[in-house]
Amino acid sequence: MRILIQNANLISMSENRPKIEKNMDIRINDDKIVEIGKDLNEEGIEKIIDAKGQYVMPGFVNTHAHIPMSIFRETVDGLNLQEWLEDKIWPMEDKLTGEDIYYASCLSYLEMIETGTTTINDMYFLTDDIIKAAIDMKIRLQTTRTLSAIGEDGDTRIAELKKLLNKYKDKYENITFNVGVHGLYTSNPKYIKKCVDFAKKENLPIHMHFCENTKEVEDIERIYNRKPVDVIENEFNDVELLFAHCVKLSEDDIKRLSKIQGLSVSHCPISNLKLGCGISNIKQMMKNGINVSLGTDGQGSGCNLDMFETMKFTALLQKGIHENAKCIRAYDVLKMATINGAKALKLQDEIGSIDVDKKADIIIFKLDSSTTNPINDVFSDIVYNAKGSDVQTTIINGKVLMENRRIINDKEEIIEKCKNIIDRIK
Amino acid sequence: MRILIQNANLISMSENRPKIEKNMDIRINDDKIVEIGKDLNEEGIEKIIDAKGQYVMPGFVNTHAHIPMSIFRETVDGLNLQEWLEDKIWPMEDKLTGEDIYYASCLSYLEMIETGTTTINDMYFLTDDIIKAAIDMKIRLQTTRTLSAIGEDGDTRIAELKKLLNKYKDKYENITFNVGVHGLYTSNPKYIKKCVDFAKKENLPIHMHFCENTKEVEDIERIYNRKPVDVIENEFNDVELLFAHCVKLSEDDIKRLSKIQGLSVSHCPISNLKLGCGISNIKQMMKNGINVSLGTDGQGSGCNLDMFETMKFTALLQKGIHENAKCIRAYDVLKMATINGAKALKLQDEIGSIDVDKKADIIIFKLDSSTTNPINDVFSDIVYNAKGSDVQTTIINGKVLMENRRIINDKEEIIEKCKNIIDRIK
Repeated sequence: MRILIQNANLISMSENRPKIEKNMDIRINDDKIVEIGKDLNEEGIEKIIDAKGQYVMPGFVNTHAHIPMSIFRETVDGLNLQEWLEDKIWPMEDKLTGEDIYYASCLSYLEMIETGTTTINDMYFLTDDIIKAAIDMKIRLQTTRTLSAIGEDGDTRIAELKKLLNKYKDKYENITFNVGVHGLYTSNPKYIKKCVDFAKKENLPIHMHFCENTKEVEDIERIYNRKPVDVIENEFNDVELLFAHCVKLSEDDIKRLSKIQGLSVSHCPISNLKLGCGISNIKQMMKNGINVSLGTDGQGSGCNLDMFETMKFTALLQKGIHENAKCIRAYDVLKMATINGAKALKLQDEIGSIDVDKKADIIIFKLDSSTTNPINDVFSDIVYNAKGSDVQTTIINGKVLMENRRIINDKEEIIEKCKNIIDRIK
Repeated sequence: MRILIQNANLISMSENRPKIEKNMDIRINDDKIVEIGKDLNEEGIEKIIDAKGQYVMPGFVNTHAHIPMSIFRETVDGLNLQEWLEDKIWPMEDKLTGEDIYYASCLSYLEMIETGTTTINDMYFLTDDIIKAAIDMKIRLQTTRTLSAIGEDGDTRIAELKKLLNKYKDKYENITFNVGVHGLYTSNPKYIKKCVDFAKKENLPIHMHFCENTKEVEDIERIYNRKPVDVIENEFNDVELLFAHCVKLSEDDIKRLSKIQGLSVSHCPISNLKLGCGISNIKQMMKNGINVSLGTDGQGSGCNLDMFETMKFTALLQKGIHENAKCIRAYDVLKMATINGAKALKLQDEIGSIDVDKKADIIIFKLDSSTTNPINDVFSDIVYNAKGSDVQTTIINGKVLMENRRIINDKEEIIEKCKNIIDRIK
């Protein structure tokens, strides 16, 4: 469809444009942005979206989630990680069917669309149903079959991922893949080598949990007889990496990781706090030039998929733990949530900013509430005061999935299905 | 007016009731709650509010704010506290008129009403206009004229507060007072004695900033030649105290403070992070039996007045810094935002829970969004996923100030006035 967005306050996140531009129009042809400028002509346009008084940005990129865990939201209060997994989550996960995974994924995609995220990076199982739901809901997904050496089916898991690649890779514009290795602590040296070789052969990046908490670091040291960063330096050469969490790293660890080509971090501050892991030192990562992106983690630990909340926690935590109000700026955080996320998923040529020839992944939001006014600094207002519910319109790959907060999907059916799933399996 | 709220999921925060009750009705006569039960009869009722499928709670109590600072929202990014105050805030504050204070206060009251706060505790100047706006907007206010010994007009400030007491005290149901001492570091031993004597004479509690950051502690030690807690133990006897912040306290300091009768804390996590002060150890305070309540601080540092955000930060920060997911429960945080706040303001007999004979300060909210479902634990869902924008109806002192998100005040006029103020003075 040919769409013209008119009169926007444009925050393009593009390196080639001013940080904010007033009264801008954006022309979309099918999946792509084809023109950005003032007073673009309306010839051939099938749909006009008037964004007068509103703000237009690239959609957020959520670089770490476990999509079907929407149904496990708020099952964790009063439990530690091990109790939660062993007593609550694993017994319920054993009962999940493909249809359950489909509807639980739909709920996460609803959350994304309603709070302004256009791309999400997933790590779970029964991935075929996660992908089917993404295709039906029209969101942009990067996914994997989670690989781990727990039990004896590590090879089966690689074979499952291979099958998914054969079925979907390069066949759907919105679906891309990485090689999701659960973690060093749920693998072993031999299995890690297999996964790295597989990633190289398929020319895919690796996505992995890394140094989330103290126990994980101790487990890694026991299994590999080396420090976590030593394992990375030795076993993960010539492959692009996205590490989620990175909480338990010293300044020296961070310096060493920064020397690894193609490494990005997915910072998940809310989940890290909620599970009692700690607070990641992303100030130090930024100083060392590491590409820091943002993730919500699954809703089981991350609460919800609202990236506005993740941005607020990101900015405030660094100021607080470093006791330095100047150590991170609002605009830096907006970059983490958009273009840095695109880089982390190796999709920076396609998404992450509003530029001609990029995919039309665009959100339009209002800053007209009593909590956002007066607007003294628009970037701060977005990071610290805007909410997912301020997003009015969400466009993914040129498709308008929400307009003036009306969504095209059947929200009530999805929520009802998910209630029934959790009632059945809990 | 005689109001009947019907079919509510009631979270009363009362010690005398279950934590949650389904299908409950609440009868309000004028300013008071007069009956709570199932299927109450409708005789004599002037207004029915159907809360079917919704949640009813006491309105939040925000125990530390600087109300007219709404207009200074997001003026601080990239500045430290001293730069922000000296280069930005103080020159602007010098230009504020009484009318400016009135409209800036109205904006804060709008934020409260729209995000479910029914009582707020203020510390600023030109207090007469803050009170006038509160009376017009019908919110519940506790206030003061800020007392400090900076310059030579400390006595004038006490006289101003005295004048306010004569004019308003015990004359307006919604307006109460405390003696707001700015801080030990902006006073001196002689002035502190005057303020404490004044508070005792007027039978009012003292509200004071305390140990917000490292520099403040150093200043106090220089001025008083003693540690901050020593000053409190020696100079603040037989008076009720509400201390905001309390970030820079050792475990021993906290233990000593817990022995002081009638001392409450206003925890302001967002402001403390944003100004680079640090994170208050409220886990230790709870363990020692101190009454911990929640504050947003002024919007200059606290971003906005949405207490849902403050609750989320409160819960998550303690889990994170103590690396203990079990150290604080969602329900504990709901208490901090309601009944503990009432205790901190010495209003626990009037507000803070839904009980017969208490004031009708009530909020009604939905948990029907894609970020709050499925509801596996309702208290966690409120603390971690609900937003100010989920509040549908706000009732203060029996007056319905917002119903189904329609507010009775002229929101656009207030926002426009505030934009004009900041444009004029910046």
